[in-house]
Amino acid sequence: MVAKSRTYHDPLHGAIVLDCRDPIEALIIQLIDTPEFQRLRRIRQLGVAGLTFHGAESSRFTHSLGVMAIARRAFDHVVQGHPNLAPYRAAVLCGGLLHDIGHGPFSHTCEDIFGSQHEHWTLRILAESLPVRQLLDGHDPQLLHQLEQIYTKQHPIPLVWQLVSSQLDCDRLDYLMRDSYFTGASYGRLDLDRILMALNYDPDSQQLVVANKGLAAIEHYLIVRYFMYAQIYNHAKNIAATWQLGQAFQRARELYRAGQILADETVSAWLAGNCDHLPLEHYLAADDGVFFYHLQRWQDHSDPVLADLCRRFVNRNLFKATEVSAIAPAQQTELLQMLHHKLEQIGFVPGYYSTICQTSSSGYTLYQRGIKLLTPQGLQEISERSPLVKTLTQPLNRTWLVYPAEFPVSPLLAPLLNP
Amino acid sequence: MVAKSRTYHDPLHGAIVLDCRDPIEALIIQLIDTPEFQRLRRIRQLGVAGLTFHGAESSRFTHSLGVMAIARRAFDHVVQGHPNLAPYRAAVLCGGLLHDIGHGPFSHTCEDIFGSQHEHWTLRILAESLPVRQLLDGHDPQLLHQLEQIYTKQHPIPLVWQLVSSQLDCDRLDYLMRDSYFTGASYGRLDLDRILMALNYDPDSQQLVVANKGLAAIEHYLIVRYFMYAQIYNHAKNIAATWQLGQAFQRARELYRAGQILADETVSAWLAGNCDHLPLEHYLAADDGVFFYHLQRWQDHSDPVLADLCRRFVNRNLFKATEVSAIAPAQQTELLQMLHHKLEQIGFVPGYYSTICQTSSSGYTLYQRGIKLLTPQGLQEISERSPLVKTLTQPLNRTWLVYPAEFPVSPLLAPLLNP
Amino acid sequence: MVAKSRTYHDPLHGAIVLDCRDPIEALIIQLIDTPEFQRLRRIRQLGVAGLTFHGAESSRFTHSLGVMAIARRAFDHVVQGHPNLAPYRAAVLCGGLLHDIGHGPFSHTCEDIFGSQHEHWTLRILAESLPVRQLLDGHDPQLLHQLEQIYTKQHPIPLVWQLVSSQLDCDRLDYLMRDSYFTGASYGRLDLDRILMALNYDPDSQQLVVANKGLAAIEHYLIVRYFMYAQIYNHAKNIAATWQLGQAFQRARELYRAGQILADETVSAWLAGNCDHLPLEHYLAADDGVFFYHLQRWQDHSDPVLADLCRRFVNRNLFKATEVSAIAPAQQTELLQMLHHKLEQIGFVPGYYSTICQTSSSGYTLYQRGIKLLTPQGLQEISERSPLVKTLTQPLNRTWLVYPAEFPVSPLLAPLLNP
Amino acid sequence: MVAKSRTYHDPLHGAIVLDCRDPIEALIIQLIDTPEFQRLRRIRQLGVAGLTFHGAESSRFTHSLGVMAIARRAFDHVVQGHPNLAPYRAAVLCGGLLHDIGHGPFSHTCEDIFGSQHEHWTLRILAESLPVRQLLDGHDPQLLHQLEQIYTKQHPIPLVWQLVSSQLDCDRLDYLMRDSYFTGASYGRLDLDRILMALNYDPDSQQLVVANKGLAAIEHYLIVRYFMYAQIYNHAKNIAATWQLGQAFQRARELYRAGQILADETVSAWLAGNCDHLPLEHYLAADDGVFFYHLQRWQDHSDPVLADLCRRFVNRNLFKATEVSAIAPAQQTELLQMLHHKLEQIGFVPGYYSTICQTSSSGYTLYQRGIKLLTPQGLQEISERSPLVKTLTQPLNRTWLVYPAEFPVSPLLAPLLNP
Repeated sequence: MVAKSRTYHDPLHGAIVLDCRDPIEALIIQLIDTPEFQRLRRIRQLGVAGLTFHGAESSRFTHSLGVMAIARRAFDHVVQGHPNLAPYRAAVLCGGLLHDIGHGPFSHTCEDIFGSQHEHWTLRILAESLPVRQLLDGHDPQLLHQLEQIYTKQHPIPLVWQLVSSQLDCDRLDYLMRDSYFTGASYGRLDLDRILMALNYDPDSQQLVVANKGLAAIEHYLIVRYFMYAQIYNHAKNIAATWQLGQAFQRARELYRAGQILADETVSAWLAGNCDHLPLEHYLAADDGVFFYHLQRWQDHSDPVLADLCRRFVNRNLFKATEVSAIAPAQQTELLQMLHHKLEQIGFVPGYYSTICQTSSSGYTLYQRGIKLLTPQGLQEISERSPLVKTLTQPLNRTWLVYPAEFPVSPLLAPLLNP
Repeated sequence: MVAKSRTYHDPLHGAIVLDCRDPIEALIIQLIDTPEFQRLRRIRQLGVAGLTFHGAESSRFTHSLGVMAIARRAFDHVVQGHPNLAPYRAAVLCGGLLHDIGHGPFSHTCEDIFGSQHEHWTLRILAESLPVRQLLDGHDPQLLHQLEQIYTKQHPIPLVWQLVSSQLDCDRLDYLMRDSYFTGASYGRLDLDRILMALNYDPDSQQLVVANKGLAAIEHYLIVRYFMYAQIYNHAKNIAATWQLGQAFQRARELYRAGQILADETVSAWLAGNCDHLPLEHYLAADDGVFFYHLQRWQDHSDPVLADLCRRFVNRNLFKATEVSAIAPAQQTELLQMLHHKLEQIGFVPGYYSTICQTSSSGYTLYQRGIKLLTPQGLQEISERSPLVKTLTQPLNRTWLVYPAEFPVSPLLAPLLNP
Repeated sequence: MVAKSRTYHDPLHGAIVLDCRDPIEALIIQLIDTPEFQRLRRIRQLGVAGLTFHGAESSRFTHSLGVMAIARRAFDHVVQGHPNLAPYRAAVLCGGLLHDIGHGPFSHTCEDIFGSQHEHWTLRILAESLPVRQLLDGHDPQLLHQLEQIYTKQHPIPLVWQLVSSQLDCDRLDYLMRDSYFTGASYGRLDLDRILMALNYDPDSQQLVVANKGLAAIEHYLIVRYFMYAQIYNHAKNIAATWQLGQAFQRARELYRAGQILADETVSAWLAGNCDHLPLEHYLAADDGVFFYHLQRWQDHSDPVLADLCRRFVNRNLFKATEVSAIAPAQQTELLQMLHHKLEQIGFVPGYYSTICQTSSSGYTLYQRGIKLLTPQGLQEISERSPLVKTLTQPLNRTWLVYPAEFPVSPLLAPLLNP
Repeated sequence: MVAKSRTYHDPLHGAIVLDCRDPIEALIIQLIDTPEFQRLRRIRQLGVAGLTFHGAESSRFTHSLGVMAIARRAFDHVVQGHPNLAPYRAAVLCGGLLHDIGHGPFSHTCEDIFGSQHEHWTLRILAESLPVRQLLDGHDPQLLHQLEQIYTKQHPIPLVWQLVSSQLDCDRLDYLMRDSYFTGASYGRLDLDRILMALNYDPDSQQLVVANKGLAAIEHYLIVRYFMYAQIYNHAKNIAATWQLGQAFQRARELYRAGQILADETVSAWLAGNCDHLPLEHYLAADDGVFFYHLQRWQDHSDPVLADLCRRFVNRNLFKATEVSAIAPAQQTELLQMLHHKLEQIGFVPGYYSTICQTSSSGYTLYQRGIKLLTPQGLQEISERSPLVKTLTQPLNRTWLVYPAEFPVSPLLAPLLNP
């Protein structure tokens, strides 16, 4: 008996049923079954945030299924009123499903250290990885090209890439809901029904637009995004943990160049050089687990800095981050110098143990064409209609001092914060 | 500034606040911070079930926090009416928190293959692992002994171990709620308020008992357990995946004995012999990630059986399990022989690729003293009061045929299932 | 601008969108807008249960929308595989929407006292009430007849009436979910996705059947029903309140016959005689509010029994119900006599203040063809497949002693309960 | 057997357990049982909003329990750090429970028409209604005075009244959560744990303040409030329904003065004159049901305006409200005149059928001392710290044109909206 459908029971979206007799949904099933997509099970959606919010343990695999499910609902809703969009269904669903397939171990942290870019790798994997490529070509020889147009935001119908990656895309909708669900932050409860019902297509500009009456639902979504950044993604502990992990890999990289570290071929290839030229197999062989395994091994490395950084990370002995935005930049520099000096005195190699770093988040930007409302007077930029959204365009810039939790930084900070 | 409390935001229990000025809760915080407890972040609560239910990605760390939180609520509720129990608070809270600390990689799967027992290791870690032992002894020199009494169900006050490990314990309450939340199975929604309010202490027998009016809440909890086993834990795909993983380690073990496999010291120590005599450090150095890493490496092993089993597992190319309970045992054996024969013909080493296995679950057993209702007529076994619970005591035994998904087993099965 | 759709935001089902361009859904909208259907806003789903569970304040209007929404999902799911059922869509949706339109004030309580039957009135309203009748006939002259076949379970395609009224119908699915949501009883959380996905049509018997793999979801639904009856619908306080309300109307009826009570024409018509011969307008003019208003007025009636019963009910000074199932029937009668005697001594008219009554609920009956599983061996009655369902077929019979809460009944009861 | 506790199972707050042995909680139980408090079961929390959002059917009784439950959690949290506040527990809990006891039928709608004020009546009921007064005095002769200080915001400890009625009070916390839960609007999901944990007491100013780290939780709460007003409370249909109801009572009042209407004594007393001088018994005898009953009766009144307004309201044939904020005030007046003229031509008495009205809501005002953050630099007004809150202080003023739904207003509006 051949199965007629495959069902994924999702805590957020309920039963996600894929119909095997629909060629597009059959393709989705086959893509999910590729080793390349299964690899996303081994890359966490929120990187190291699970060290701060213990529930944040879910993977990009789970998230990617969710994005596809939302993209399907959104597209099938819009296409009802605009049947001429129907030919783009495969591109939108695959675009949603595969949008994270290029993510490497510890996602953004490793991108910073190793100079890899997941967008670049998404395109390479689609084009060069046989199991994926053959499925795409087998369905439609133009599909790969369309996906490239989506990921580079050059698809002739902007709606097609906007559903996958824009200020109001299915990626964000899923991760805000999902991260909120798993971290237990009530902030992120979106009104997905109202949002999806408000989505529409503007035949003139060929863009994704929002019906006027959906304004509040979209405002709410942007607010949620702001809160999730402020409270979860940019939480002080998360900033510290992320930087700390980066330092461990940074040190490993330096030791590798000096020929003083052992790693398997995959990790060696990453440590060796510019990641964008890695052989595809080494990129695909890497995941959070492979890298974390090396950190575990390096806990006993002879280099005291590497060993210490790895032990701290593995055992969740996290650095601390304190906001110092209120201190003038010049004084911040002085503060860091003083701190480095003190850390050095007690035996630390200070650059690996302390830094000043910045986070900047805004709930909304005009980047990627913003979000357009369909009003009786024509398309209107949402930030011009909504004082709340206007407020969210002001980026929230914060400066953080990162240092070992056991180091008494208060005596240094107190006179600066309360002069 | 010293923190006054530490808060864990839990998706199920809301804010779990630990009060640093309460010596017991301060101890809990310190225990959470030990490397031994942090290691539970790297062991999944549901082993390989995430391959079947994509949301099932949470760890024993997360679960253990939840058990402690429920144990605290339950104990603090019971102690209100029985203040003489107050001295056991530390034992109950630590007992709940640490009950899973002895779990090894892939929990029960590896226990079967390597002959380790997490209960044994829990006791060893508490007694022998310095950071944990010192914290326990520092709080109260009798605490370790009390925990041993809890885990061996020999504590003089049965309620103390019953809250941690019995037919109605905080472990089960948390995992049913949590697994349901993360897999999206609505079945597992417990009425925790009603259950906890019904818990009481019987001064005569010193047991945990249930107030008469809590009958329905407890019936419901036992039903939920039955459903979670039937639908989630014993799902056909999960049975197949678990067996398949075991086979890979089984093969690795044999190759190790033949000197034909490479592994790091930790995994080597596991492969080498009886796990209950492992040095503590090698037990603690093992986790899901370390073992999974080896499976990833062994995908390229020269032994075709090992390499194939590992590739299948890593890429989630899962075996299939079909229920054959309806077939008479003698015919089951014949069936397996026939299947083995056919698999051999097409080049498989059949023992690694196919088996008949059994699952047995009952929603309720009298084991561990059962659950007692406090009625006007005295204590009464719940299964004697409730026809539903009585029904649940009948174990659900099921027999499964496991085989590679690509193998057409229907022609063999059809005549047996529909004679 | 003509609206393209109408949306009801439902706390359980999310956005229920009705498409104005679909003739059936347009009909649904018009039926909702009739005074007959709007009247259901003034009849509570759970009668007086709100006096016991304060959240249980929702109306049959709300519930009826939900039934229609589930019926639509269920029907549209089944019809996908059986397009020949499509002509029955209007009947199923209207059948679901209108199934409660015949309910009178305080539903079942008043049915007992006044001898009305909501099933009878549903048929009368559809046939005789112009606004409804014209809409039905305008859509399809056969529709009324089909609805009659549904409500009398004589539709030639059993599936059509089974979706509306059977052991597994959309009515029960909605009210279990809804009552659970509003009372805060976690028991009632159904896995609607899994249930609806399991529904199917058996072309041979033309019945609604359940796919084999949906067994657990259906078992769970039946268990939920059992719990909701045991815990909510048959709660002791609810039994007492229901009986107490009936007594007030009983007394009013007697006073009416004696010409000793004032009421408006509608209530007078009800008090006067056999309700099944009421003029339609008086049936439709009655609702919970109209009847409750009279209870409020009668608080000052010169008849002390009526005045007292009304005051107690209005101010929620409820009778008490104590389970006496453990007492032998002969002793129950004695007990009631003794109680009546004592009540009389202190000035009560005992028959209005105390009774012995029975409740009987079973989670499942074979009535209305039961529920059929579609197995490889053909249709199978679910209770023969599931020991849990089998257990649920045993009715739970309970006997209750009802009496004024201020009366000390313990001295009478204690020797009988603990002889 | 005397009960040790009473439990209310609440869909939002879970089990609300009141301890009978705690004198304050025993008082709460007795207050709940008074006819005055039970009367709140018959006044809907959201007035006529159930006509727009069908789930909005819950009562002020339900809400008042919730406010008390939150007030208890909030107070018991704050008092932990400030034990000197303990003497005010009874005042805060009773203050929360009874804050709505003075509400009349259809709350704000009837206040506008009849000139009653629920705040005035709350004070009168506490002081003059025997059952309540005796309970308060019996507990503590000073309690009534303290409650008066709370409701007039003159309590010497501002925190005591701020918990009950301020920009961040338990009233708002409960109704936002509850209205969101029952209407199905995801907007209103508050993070109650985080909010309550952030509440604190400032010993200097004796005010309720918010810990610095609670900023986001409070921002979120204020945003939620903004959304609930924009989407639910000020929904166009709700504005129309509210005005329409007022018009019916307005007309009834005029007919009463002309001696042309029948009503029972209670409603007559309301229709007769200034409601603030009503005898207490007539105030307490009035509720939504009593007034709605009269609307039902008046459907057959000989005055065609009253009869028509009542029939429309009873059958939910609602007026329509269209936003005309974009039109200049002078033109609005013209528009209304034109509309009145046209309505008159076709036989309407225009003043009862059409109006221009305004709504104004701001998410936050400085009124009632605002909300103060406790920062290292001292107390700080939240709107000065948060750009989002600052934005919310700008009131959202909207102007609406209300008219019968069947009247084609578009031809009048179109040229003004799109000149």
